[in-house]
Amino acid sequence: MTVRLSTEEIEEALRGLDGWKTVDGREAIEKSFKFANFNQAFAFMTRVALKAEKMDHHPEWFNVYSRVDVTLATHDVEGLSSKDVALATFMNKIAS
Amino acid sequence: MTVRLSTEEIEEALRGLDGWKTVDGREAIEKSFKFANFNQAFAFMTRVALKAEKMDHHPEWFNVYSRVDVTLATHDVEGLSSKDVALATFMNKIAS
Repeated sequence: MTVRLSTEEIEEALRGLDGWKTVDGREAIEKSFKFANFNQAFAFMTRVALKAEKMDHHPEWFNVYSRVDVTLATHDVEGLSSKDVALATFMNKIAS
Repeated sequence: MTVRLSTEEIEEALRGLDGWKTVDGREAIEKSFKFANFNQAFAFMTRVALKAEKMDHHPEWFNVYSRVDVTLATHDVEGLSSKDVALATFMNKIAS
């Protein structure tokens, strides 16, 4: 069962997630990733897509050329869950 | 050399591009594509990414689960060019 994170749990998680912050007016987290070019940006998106599909937990994201803006939230709990933290951690790992 | 399309040329092109329309306040065209699920949406994005990279002409796009919102414009001409029409035509073809 997916559990909604408390404000304290979100703050704790964000301390370990470089570059991620909460979204104004919405219980979600966001980060803008910058790459060298479109090839690298889409390679990142492809790795994330495979991971997301496997987790059955998908990002909201915007891409223009070398930039990928990602927003994560968990619909089922109308907030954030450990799935968002796991996917954000994965993204940071493969983007670094 | 990439040439900026005139208003008449844009209108003419849009008549042949099902679902595409001009963006308010910006010389660009947009369309929202809907698929059965994330798998199909990202498969579409992957085919478009390969085409875009080959054309060296990239979309601005937003994806959430089964939806892909695309905006096309040509930076070099600060408007629309035949490249946008070609990429939009490709997207319609593979999405249908």
